[in-house]
Amino acid sequence: MDFTRIDAHIDEHFARHLARVQTFVRQPSISGEGVGMREMADLVAGSIRQLGGSAEIVATPGWPVVYGELDAGAPRTLLLYGMYDVQPVAGEDWLVPPFEGRILPFEDRGDCVVARGVYNTKGPLAGLFSALESVRAVEGRLPVNLKFMIEGEEELGSRHLPAFVERYKERLRADGTYFAFYAQKKSGKPALWLGVKGILFFELICRGGAWGGPTTRGIHGSLGALIASPAWRMVHALETMTGPDERITIDGLYDQVIPPSAGDERVLADLAKTIDIDLELRENDVRRPKHDLTGADLLRRYLFDPILNIDGIVGGHHGAGTKTLLPHEVRAKMHVRLVPSMEPDDVRGKLLAHLEKIGCADFEAHFEEGYPWAKMSPAAPISQAMIRALRSFGLEPEVWPNIAGSAPFYIFSRILKQPFAMGGLGHGGRAHSPNEFATLEGMRLFERSVARFLYEFAAIRE
Amino acid sequence: MDFTRIDAHIDEHFARHLARVQTFVRQPSISGEGVGMREMADLVAGSIRQLGGSAEIVATPGWPVVYGELDAGAPRTLLLYGMYDVQPVAGEDWLVPPFEGRILPFEDRGDCVVARGVYNTKGPLAGLFSALESVRAVEGRLPVNLKFMIEGEEELGSRHLPAFVERYKERLRADGTYFAFYAQKKSGKPALWLGVKGILFFELICRGGAWGGPTTRGIHGSLGALIASPAWRMVHALETMTGPDERITIDGLYDQVIPPSAGDERVLADLAKTIDIDLELRENDVRRPKHDLTGADLLRRYLFDPILNIDGIVGGHHGAGTKTLLPHEVRAKMHVRLVPSMEPDDVRGKLLAHLEKIGCADFEAHFEEGYPWAKMSPAAPISQAMIRALRSFGLEPEVWPNIAGSAPFYIFSRILKQPFAMGGLGHGGRAHSPNEFATLEGMRLFERSVARFLYEFAAIRE
Repeated sequence: MDFTRIDAHIDEHFARHLARVQTFVRQPSISGEGVGMREMADLVAGSIRQLGGSAEIVATPGWPVVYGELDAGAPRTLLLYGMYDVQPVAGEDWLVPPFEGRILPFEDRGDCVVARGVYNTKGPLAGLFSALESVRAVEGRLPVNLKFMIEGEEELGSRHLPAFVERYKERLRADGTYFAFYAQKKSGKPALWLGVKGILFFELICRGGAWGGPTTRGIHGSLGALIASPAWRMVHALETMTGPDERITIDGLYDQVIPPSAGDERVLADLAKTIDIDLELRENDVRRPKHDLTGADLLRRYLFDPILNIDGIVGGHHGAGTKTLLPHEVRAKMHVRLVPSMEPDDVRGKLLAHLEKIGCADFEAHFEEGYPWAKMSPAAPISQAMIRALRSFGLEPEVWPNIAGSAPFYIFSRILKQPFAMGGLGHGGRAHSPNEFATLEGMRLFERSVARFLYEFAAIRE
Repeated sequence: MDFTRIDAHIDEHFARHLARVQTFVRQPSISGEGVGMREMADLVAGSIRQLGGSAEIVATPGWPVVYGELDAGAPRTLLLYGMYDVQPVAGEDWLVPPFEGRILPFEDRGDCVVARGVYNTKGPLAGLFSALESVRAVEGRLPVNLKFMIEGEEELGSRHLPAFVERYKERLRADGTYFAFYAQKKSGKPALWLGVKGILFFELICRGGAWGGPTTRGIHGSLGALIASPAWRMVHALETMTGPDERITIDGLYDQVIPPSAGDERVLADLAKTIDIDLELRENDVRRPKHDLTGADLLRRYLFDPILNIDGIVGGHHGAGTKTLLPHEVRAKMHVRLVPSMEPDDVRGKLLAHLEKIGCADFEAHFEEGYPWAKMSPAAPISQAMIRALRSFGLEPEVWPNIAGSAPFYIFSRILKQPFAMGGLGHGGRAHSPNEFATLEGMRLFERSVARFLYEFAAIRE
């Protein structure tokens, strides 16, 4: 297969492809705040129809899923999973307005789009549509049939996706699933992530009640001599949940954790040879890792340990100036990252048992839907197809057993029972942070890599 | 002395007196946010001039002090201390706009003004001016000479008042100081507070740095497996500062605390006979006290124990929805209430030593100016003058050794070395809370009680 003409088509039409990225990021679609979701679903459905596919916007109890099909008369079918929602920007300090799609030289990375969602993951989603257009324009038809499942609740833990998948199970049948993502590091080396951790979100709320404390409003701080403090109670409760090294101190929480397999250890050992952890830290403006470890030992903690994270905590007066206040409630938003073989329901039970054990059964604990981890073997044909696609650029991928982050890929491995791959060329960063960015050069490379992967996937003989 | 004509004058002109309260509360004057401070100082200075006094607005490095004098040719002089600033309203949920001065029936208390500052303390301040006007209108002249020191930083811990007092020391000489306040409970019983606790405000900030953690921005929560969390570090640091019963666990913090004197214990024992602590709790929507004690034992903890309070804590994502985030900084606004014989500088030193001891010397610790406690004897002539003024209404005051709250009365007892009194009739509540209120009936009674106190104070022979 000669990709010269497809690459040239991408280059010739790149201004239009870039404009599509900008159109996508200019449409805010913050699932957590309910902003612009329907408009963004319409944009995605429209892009599927432009390709000649059929698309429907399927209601769920939350935000809709955009489902689509495109029959190319090919022997094999690929399910394109994606997301059209992004993180909130409230409280973040940006160089440029986060929904303007501004192009500017950013840090030392050349021209970038700096915008919420451009990396995670509207840039790749727009690039995917553009790559498909270029392949079809040049070759007349696509090498695989496509199905699309683009959800609007990834940033909410994909809470209604499992039920959707159960409903659409037969229509979602495919030979594999692909999740588009910019996976090149700043050095140009592409990463290949074979799996994801699972996640369980929850919010703990301590407020005054039968135990004491103010119940309906913050009261004068001097009353803290007479009346107990929900803030102190929250501090003492949280403190029982981790040790000083952040190891989780909730009974039984590590019971289900299994050590990396021999295969995982080989991937880890290879990864340790090429990865520059200091670079990873510097990219995040971090001076030292949490654990005093190096190489595979550090990576093992990073990728195979569960964590209990405080995403945010708030209570009482936190504005300007002083205010003596005894707050009536303190809230902590938290999550657990689940590694093999932890299950969300089991972890939820252990968290609740811990609250009971420490005398905090009266705390409100709001759990969001969680989901488990998912992994592919590096030897799986779909993994090898991605590896070949990346190697065709002369780039040897850095293979990770899984990422530290989460995505609901258990839906593919466990429910649909089909293999999955993610990634591609392209470079960006600062997901969930101010000044999220992606490079223009990376967008171009991403589209080329998608075209390669499509043909590699089409050529799999199982 | 017959007060019939003064009381009648207050009643006849009460509509105008109430309008003055509304004028005062309609002018926001939030010292912590720098809103409306100059305008409010002008209103206060204008009120002094209307009485026939002289007034100046004296600049400080913070908000100005309104200083005034009114020579009535009387043998004795009273310094009127007051404040023209109020607490912020940000984040509070009010029944009515907090700066509208709306009159409405509130709870079961009859007609009230519900507004920020009406209780703490613009209602009493306005009522003081109105009472003075009525006395002068009826009697032709006031029974005492007056000096005024109305500050704009009470809610900031009166940070620049000591320096002002040093500058104006000679001009501030008087035979005593009075702080106007509504001190009647819902039952109608007036409280007489003989003193105040001191206070030391500070803010602790934990952010990523050489120890680890993100240094410049919140980063993706999955990185918590690799990178340490400032939120967990703050939780573990705060936890070392109090026990589960909120007893302060900072070395030496109780060293300076002295037990109540025999005189204090007598006042406590009397107070325990009449006070209904359950009512105090109910007024604050609280179901049980912090300590499992009753009577004088509970009051002793309330009034003679220092506390370490968390006024507010904030870090990371605390808006709607979920966001997996490793926050780069967490802030806790806190204060210590100082009882005899704790000194702010000593406490500051012990807090810093504690941070050092627990390995958190790198936390930012911002201290606001603090000040110590202050107390009067119930036998002091000025205390007795207030007791007689209250008894003239057929009301036996409930005498408190001190309040749990703070005011910079050490300035009078230590720097100016003159006796002080506070209070009066009048009823209100919810200081520092939404729906701060004061009753219209209480405003009228307050003015009458001020007139009585002026004459009782004038009659003191020392």
